[in-house]
Amino acid sequence: MAEVLRVSVVLPAGGTGERMGGGTPKQYCPVLGRALISRTMEAMERVSWISDVVVVVAPESVDLMKFIVHQYGHRRVSLVEGGPTRHRSIFNGLRAFLEDHSLGRALQKPEVVIIHDAVRPFVEEDVLQQITRAAKENGAAGAVRPLVSTVIASSSDGCLDHSLERSKHRASEMPQAFLFDVIYNAYLQCTDYDLDFGTECLHLALEYSKVRAKLVEGPPDLWKVTYKRDLYTAESIIKERLAKHLCIITHNKEDAIQIGFLLHESLKSQIKNVKAISSSMCKTAHELQGILLGQCYNFVCINVKESDFEETQKLTSLLQSSGICPSYPSVVVSVHLDFPEQSGTQDLSGIRDLAKEAQKADVLVYSLLIRFPKDEVQLQENVREASSIIMALIKDRNPVLTGQILVAGKK
Amino acid sequence: MAEVLRVSVVLPAGGTGERMGGGTPKQYCPVLGRALISRTMEAMERVSWISDVVVVVAPESVDLMKFIVHQYGHRRVSLVEGGPTRHRSIFNGLRAFLEDHSLGRALQKPEVVIIHDAVRPFVEEDVLQQITRAAKENGAAGAVRPLVSTVIASSSDGCLDHSLERSKHRASEMPQAFLFDVIYNAYLQCTDYDLDFGTECLHLALEYSKVRAKLVEGPPDLWKVTYKRDLYTAESIIKERLAKHLCIITHNKEDAIQIGFLLHESLKSQIKNVKAISSSMCKTAHELQGILLGQCYNFVCINVKESDFEETQKLTSLLQSSGICPSYPSVVVSVHLDFPEQSGTQDLSGIRDLAKEAQKADVLVYSLLIRFPKDEVQLQENVREASSIIMALIKDRNPVLTGQILVAGKK
Ligand SMILES: [Mg+2]
Ligand SMILES: [Mg+2]
Repeated sequence: MAEVLRVSVVLPAGGTGERMGGGTPKQYCPVLGRALISRTMEAMERVSWISDVVVVVAPESVDLMKFIVHQYGHRRVSLVEGGPTRHRSIFNGLRAFLEDHSLGRALQKPEVVIIHDAVRPFVEEDVLQQITRAAKENGAAGAVRPLVSTVIASSSDGCLDHSLERSKHRASEMPQAFLFDVIYNAYLQCTDYDLDFGTECLHLALEYSKVRAKLVEGPPDLWKVTYKRDLYTAESIIKERLAKHLCIITHNKEDAIQIGFLLHESLKSQIKNVKAISSSMCKTAHELQGILLGQCYNFVCINVKESDFEETQKLTSLLQSSGICPSYPSVVVSVHLDFPEQSGTQDLSGIRDLAKEAQKADVLVYSLLIRFPKDEVQLQENVREASSIIMALIKDRNPVLTGQILVAGKK
Repeated sequence: MAEVLRVSVVLPAGGTGERMGGGTPKQYCPVLGRALISRTMEAMERVSWISDVVVVVAPESVDLMKFIVHQYGHRRVSLVEGGPTRHRSIFNGLRAFLEDHSLGRALQKPEVVIIHDAVRPFVEEDVLQQITRAAKENGAAGAVRPLVSTVIASSSDGCLDHSLERSKHRASEMPQAFLFDVIYNAYLQCTDYDLDFGTECLHLALEYSKVRAKLVEGPPDLWKVTYKRDLYTAESIIKERLAKHLCIITHNKEDAIQIGFLLHESLKSQIKNVKAISSSMCKTAHELQGILLGQCYNFVCINVKESDFEETQKLTSLLQSSGICPSYPSVVVSVHLDFPEQSGTQDLSGIRDLAKEAQKADVLVYSLLIRFPKDEVQLQENVREASSIIMALIKDRNPVLTGQILVAGKK
């Protein structure tokens, strides 16, 4: 955003999650092992032109939030204590850019401030850019979505008064953006009634700063995690996104190369990006970092019998020691070949301990034994079965099943 | 509903799913292996006092719907061809109660007609009862929900005109119910513009029959499956509900009884209803039907070594042959005990073929080997691990992993 001097974010996160039926406020509920708010903060920090992210937290949750910020390395986040209502919390967040606030470092006043929700983790740079530009031009802007249901006005006796024309109305979503002075001055002027009972910042900008916000059609994934079912949905969306990249790492031995090739052929019809590399190309944490930064969290390691699970071991220890704090758990499928003509069964029991250790660093290791018959057609069928199992493991990312030995093909 | 003479349903299902990004209309998308609309029809058929369910189908989908109705044994469903818009389709559905329609048997005109959506499968008897009663009293009634987002009116230049007071407005959801004559007469009088561009039946009842609908606050699960993410959500909700009941079937041998007891203790903290029965109590399809009708779709079968997997075999063949068309896939976890002092490993490879066969009847069989050490503390830890694995299998219901042998405890 070269055309804007400084853009920062206020993220009100003081809600108590009453609609979820009590219990943990939804911004602190885990989604793939990490509090939802951490995923939202990360979405903001991914955007290079955002300077500061002020998170407004209920007083009783400050310690928890400090832990989350530290645990996941959120470097551009400052914490501010919230007020009793949403508007009062946002106002506190805005004031943090002007005064010395108690909880963190001093912040610089931005030209444009984005206000978002802690419980909308799927916000993308694209829509942030659009509303920031629109705010710079118009003074205020907000994301909107078409109405899914017709909206009706009810009378005092609980009956239909009238229904609204759907095409003329929109659902007001987040993010919204404002010239800092536009929204700050609106807060300075608004009444206690506004601060206590209102929720809509666009309304304050209109009422007190006489600025008509530009409405920007946002994508459907902007929706607000409100009910328990929305947490399932968030998890499913992340899992689906994570299942789009896979890296196959193959030992340089003939059989391994053949299986690697066949798996690659079979998996590429189900996964958008399948990358196959030789094990020699994945030797350093630096190279691995490149793969992880490419948003790949799925690995298939093809081992050969003589080496037990050397390739898997190398990869998992790189993943554990790379110093990268990964956003999501990685899946490592340790593939082993089982030749019927060879006597004795492979001892893969060490995988169990390896998996237990790796799980501490959020690396999920599963073992997959592929029967390798002489018959070419049978082999291909086994590889198809192996691919289905790999896909199932990647899509579920189930920590409970790590260390298990799965089998593709009949003995 | 003793106080109402006859209640029937119209289920418009002619939508083409544009909001899902093209592809299969959402009512035909599979959720746990069955088209969404079949789950909605089933929700209606579960209610004893509903006479007929008229499903209005796009002409090009009639064959598909006939297949679904036959496949899942929907006995109270009649199909009617839809028109080009939602209102025209509903009107066709209503006419089916008055005329001989081409696609099925003759129907009797109901006193109250419920109009619902094909893509809201989680409708419960409770809300159907409430809106039916309210319709009988008031002429019309509809389920509503609080607004999740503020609704705003936009001006022609794409800016905010004003925002609506959230507390005075509601989202109009489904189901809705009407005295048949109230809604039918409204359709007879309404304009072509209404039929082509309107969507809201409550509005027609108000405008043309002068009936102000009673608004009934519905539960959150009434929401409409609109986006692809909603399909994930629907699947997660069903899986969560299915994970509330479990039946442990134990062979009458000392070790099996002990493991059965320990598993029961461990699982009952995670599952609402865990029932433990001796294998002798689960001998006939009749008894099994009782368990399935109690909404239990999860079984743990504890086998003893001498019998291989006799208990599992008995149960799965009962499940396959019982003639019950189950609503959901059943999970059978075949538990086996592994004693370190006994020589030789158990041959469980037959489980693979058993599982493949059972899957055709929607029975998902997994095998779980529990290490049975002499040390009591170690045994308890293994049982805890086994419980976690059982929970993971039940929650995921993954068909790809059937026939696999999982292990709890260290060799
Ligand atoms: Mg607002
Ligand atoms: Mg309607």
